[in-house]
Amino acid sequence: MNAEIIAVGSELLLGQIANTNAQFLSEQLAMLGINVYFHTVVGDNPDRLKMAVKQAEKRADLIIFTGGLGPTKDDLTKETISKILGRQLVYDQEALQSILDYYKKTGRHMTENNRKQALVIEGSDVLPNRQGMAPGMLTETSGRTYILLPGPPFEMRPMYLDYVKPHLSGRHSEQIVSRVLKFFGIGESALETEIMDLIDGQSNPTIAPLAKESEVTLRLTAKHTDRLHAEQMIDQTEQLIKGRVGQYFYGYDPMTLPMAAFYQLKENSLTVAAAESLTGGLFSKQLTDIPGASDVFKGSIISYSNDVKERQLDIPASLLASDGAVSEACAKAMAQSVRAKCGADIGVSFTGVAGPEKSEDKDVGTVYIGIADAMTAYSFLYHMNGTRPSIRIRTAKSGFDLLRRYVLKTSPFN
Amino acid sequence: MNAEIIAVGSELLLGQIANTNAQFLSEQLAMLGINVYFHTVVGDNPDRLKMAVKQAEKRADLIIFTGGLGPTKDDLTKETISKILGRQLVYDQEALQSILDYYKKTGRHMTENNRKQALVIEGSDVLPNRQGMAPGMLTETSGRTYILLPGPPFEMRPMYLDYVKPHLSGRHSEQIVSRVLKFFGIGESALETEIMDLIDGQSNPTIAPLAKESEVTLRLTAKHTDRLHAEQMIDQTEQLIKGRVGQYFYGYDPMTLPMAAFYQLKENSLTVAAAESLTGGLFSKQLTDIPGASDVFKGSIISYSNDVKERQLDIPASLLASDGAVSEACAKAMAQSVRAKCGADIGVSFTGVAGPEKSEDKDVGTVYIGIADAMTAYSFLYHMNGTRPSIRIRTAKSGFDLLRRYVLKTSPFN
Repeated sequence: MNAEIIAVGSELLLGQIANTNAQFLSEQLAMLGINVYFHTVVGDNPDRLKMAVKQAEKRADLIIFTGGLGPTKDDLTKETISKILGRQLVYDQEALQSILDYYKKTGRHMTENNRKQALVIEGSDVLPNRQGMAPGMLTETSGRTYILLPGPPFEMRPMYLDYVKPHLSGRHSEQIVSRVLKFFGIGESALETEIMDLIDGQSNPTIAPLAKESEVTLRLTAKHTDRLHAEQMIDQTEQLIKGRVGQYFYGYDPMTLPMAAFYQLKENSLTVAAAESLTGGLFSKQLTDIPGASDVFKGSIISYSNDVKERQLDIPASLLASDGAVSEACAKAMAQSVRAKCGADIGVSFTGVAGPEKSEDKDVGTVYIGIADAMTAYSFLYHMNGTRPSIRIRTAKSGFDLLRRYVLKTSPFN
Repeated sequence: MNAEIIAVGSELLLGQIANTNAQFLSEQLAMLGINVYFHTVVGDNPDRLKMAVKQAEKRADLIIFTGGLGPTKDDLTKETISKILGRQLVYDQEALQSILDYYKKTGRHMTENNRKQALVIEGSDVLPNRQGMAPGMLTETSGRTYILLPGPPFEMRPMYLDYVKPHLSGRHSEQIVSRVLKFFGIGESALETEIMDLIDGQSNPTIAPLAKESEVTLRLTAKHTDRLHAEQMIDQTEQLIKGRVGQYFYGYDPMTLPMAAFYQLKENSLTVAAAESLTGGLFSKQLTDIPGASDVFKGSIISYSNDVKERQLDIPASLLASDGAVSEACAKAMAQSVRAKCGADIGVSFTGVAGPEKSEDKDVGTVYIGIADAMTAYSFLYHMNGTRPSIRIRTAKSGFDLLRRYVLKTSPFN
């Protein structure tokens, strides 16, 4: 089954909002094994909408529309589709009643155009709207399914999940299982080169790489009538992949690097404190984005000035003078000091040059990350490329990855 | 001029990401007065991409592509477009050199597929990529413009702004001038109510309100053949608006609250230090996102645990026992302490309940922000609604707004 998603609304073409409805529906349809080959966005214009529908009818047997079901004059999706299908618009009594009830209950004045929302395409299944007034519609004709959903995501999503998904699921005997593997510390092209033969050789499961913010993900997707069997097919492919690049794997989507580090720390009842210089709070912010962070996080000292490095982290002025703040010695001392001062098991430190200017004659992108426990202090040197924000983001991610590896006692801590 | 935006990438059709590139480009094109009638999303498939291009050529004289310029085998946008245009792909020496330089600098191994990124459509203008390796392309043929941009938004946006926008702007005789006013501390509907007559009464300039992350923006857009005249029309409308809601105005887009506070501090040669509890580093992170932050920012102490509040901020255990960490007394003491410890002119502190759980029997959303200078300590109590992330974001924004107002000596500091 091939689907096409048509979003109707000039606000999308003006860039006022992003088409997150298409993302949601695509993800949902992918889970059902329904191929989506095109998204189209078209404005509140009957002729151009008709053009988009005619085009979609040539290549899809399921067309899902979002938007254009509201009360205003420029809401014209059902008007246009009903004409294309040669059907009338008729009042749905249930929808009309719930509109009248709403105005009665809230005591607000009902303008006449609100009645328009109860009009539906004759002969279609009416999909109730729990979050708003405009109902959706589902109708099948000449082997093709047309589904009309409202535009606001908080109305569209529950309507899809409650009515459309069960309808579409019933049709498919084939199960689609997806799993996303996340990697850090290897580039997209290097990873792809390592597993090129697997990508080329396999059609079920498929392997789809995607690079995002210094990370690489692989989406494995298997189809089989038996869900468990599809899972096993993915397991096998995952093992093959991990045999090649397992040292960079850190978790499955929606796992993030901060979460991976958090879970490792929590599981091992370890706490951490951070001394942040170039990251300026980013590491701590990302760790405390996680509810329950206080189980593993004691606190941090953001030593953005050398002054604070001396006063709050007791970094000797002599060390700052001899080695500089961006140095192995300073990274180790910062990690050791913040660990002791905040009473944590592990100290992690970040010092480097985020740019745009050089610092201490060190190039932009020079970064030291320190890790210290009661016994040992480690320091790791990086040369990063990119802009100030991307260097900061990659530095924080590297810190979480090191922390995770420290707790797991894997490379470089083994 | 009519434009169509074609996004290429199976990750969009699988719902892994939303098509935010189309939103950005639509917004940009609207500002230039270029109509966008369709967005299309198509997967990494040459035949279907060709179908989308053929369709777009029928209805648009500007076609902008995003995505599919990367190193992997399924990146095929330029391969497909070059075939459609009957042109060769040739190596761009500058792009090739910058790829080689990147691998030399980082010391990473360059896989052969990376070279592919330096291939460009013969005869096209090559658009340099400051944030990545794949250059963009712009080419005109038979009165139609084809622009190929990379998929990652952080690569695509600067490329559009630096190269594509100036190119497109040059073509229009009518000047469109836009200015975005940013407000904090007032809700969208309250602001709209204050200026409803202005919104209704004006068509040039237009006034478009938008609410985003606890802020409200007003976009004023004027059209005139004379750019200066359009600017003056906007000036007049801006004055009318400020007469009503000027006390909430803090700057023009792309100004942000952290930047507004940063500029005020810098202009007055003042420095700040922060004691962060519920924000966990967010305030410091946002301040240090700004290049040159070290001119005004000394450092912070993130006292996520009471332990660190006592040890690093010298908050008396008796105060924590009597008033609690989420209290006016604690907010003031934190601000005073971090100011002294980091040697800053101003101390700012954040303590509160971000949730999801209550804390110290105080409701989620209870937040105290402290501000201290050498003479006085202030404390401000908020009751915020929303989720953990939105409470944290609003708290940090309120901190920047208070800091800005403190330096300006306006309400509540006058």
